[in-house]
Amino acid sequence: MQHFKLEEIMDMERRKRATLINYLSGFKSANLIGTKSKEGQLNVAVFNSVIHIGANPPYFGFILRPITVPRHTYQYINETGYYTINHIHKSFYQAAHQTSAKYDTNISEFEAVGITPEFKGDFFAPYVRESHIQMGMELKEIHKIECNNTFLVIGKAVEIWLPDNSIDEDGHICLSDQKTVAIGGLDTYYETSKLDRLEYARLQQNS
Amino acid sequence: MQHFKLEEIMDMERRKRATLINYLSGFKSANLIGTKSKEGQLNVAVFNSVIHIGANPPYFGFILRPITVPRHTYQYINETGYYTINHIHKSFYQAAHQTSAKYDTNISEFEAVGITPEFKGDFFAPYVRESHIQMGMELKEIHKIECNNTFLVIGKAVEIWLPDNSIDEDGHICLSDQKTVAIGGLDTYYETSKLDRLEYARLQQNS
Repeated sequence: MQHFKLEEIMDMERRKRATLINYLSGFKSANLIGTKSKEGQLNVAVFNSVIHIGANPPYFGFILRPITVPRHTYQYINETGYYTINHIHKSFYQAAHQTSAKYDTNISEFEAVGITPEFKGDFFAPYVRESHIQMGMELKEIHKIECNNTFLVIGKAVEIWLPDNSIDEDGHICLSDQKTVAIGGLDTYYETSKLDRLEYARLQQNS
Repeated sequence: MQHFKLEEIMDMERRKRATLINYLSGFKSANLIGTKSKEGQLNVAVFNSVIHIGANPPYFGFILRPITVPRHTYQYINETGYYTINHIHKSFYQAAHQTSAKYDTNISEFEAVGITPEFKGDFFAPYVRESHIQMGMELKEIHKIECNNTFLVIGKAVEIWLPDNSIDEDGHICLSDQKTVAIGGLDTYYETSKLDRLEYARLQQNS
């Protein structure tokens, strides 16, 4: 095996280090976060850091990079308290990835990349119509991560939208059937196929 | 589509809700975290919440459930400051999943499930020999998440171990070639195949 000490990692060229380190946590979720400013400007951006925080009630988190340049997602969530989380599927991952380009404040990434904003009921923030699994989120907590000035943003799902017949009687959804993609590193997209669903792990008898 | 408001989610049977909500963030990473107590007791446990926090220097986080019962991973990290993160591959995901059973304090999950602890150099915590992608971690910050009493544990990678020839000149690793698995929900394991590696997103000309 190859061995890298911290000093060797820190000596790597900056972009190579960022590329490498981003793979090392394993697969990442692939979501679009939709927001709307107080003035009505729409924003959508790809995030590979959405994670499960808890189910009772349903909480999800994501990591925001340091606020050294304008971050519309952060600004609009902070000023309105609402956002949406939308799965990225195989059918539109290229357009989803393109939302990470640095568009001007007065440009909606929805229009720029050809993704469709959808307002449902009285929920404030825009959903992504192309997504089959969508959550309407209410901001709950923001934690500043001291070691590198990133933020963990936590919200509560106040509504969820799912395809008809996608949930079995025990609550399972097959993410590969839904064609939800996974991300490796910063820019590599993967499709998946199910290996197995394992039982809740119990102590083995006779062992 | 099916629509569930928060009240309907909260009215679901507890296990069904936990199962469903755990799928909604999308794919999760699959890692084993290895620890050793001050007294030398070894521990290894499956985690589906390891995330990238930053690359300069390399920081990773994971979510720990509330400390209402003994959590050896948390206790040993807290008392020693060191742990390892090890990718779970297709070759041993069943054994890795079995580490989540409630073994007694004096039992090493390594022995119980048939996974091999490996000490390398002078690093304090045990690696998982079966894993091809391993990181030696030093505890950095713990954040208590107020809304549900979980914790975000952040550490710095002080060394990494990777297979020979697994990194290309730009720092990319192919996670599907490494047979690293992804997790959906609490208990469903997926293998992956690469769709594409996309360019760093730039503003499109003539648009």
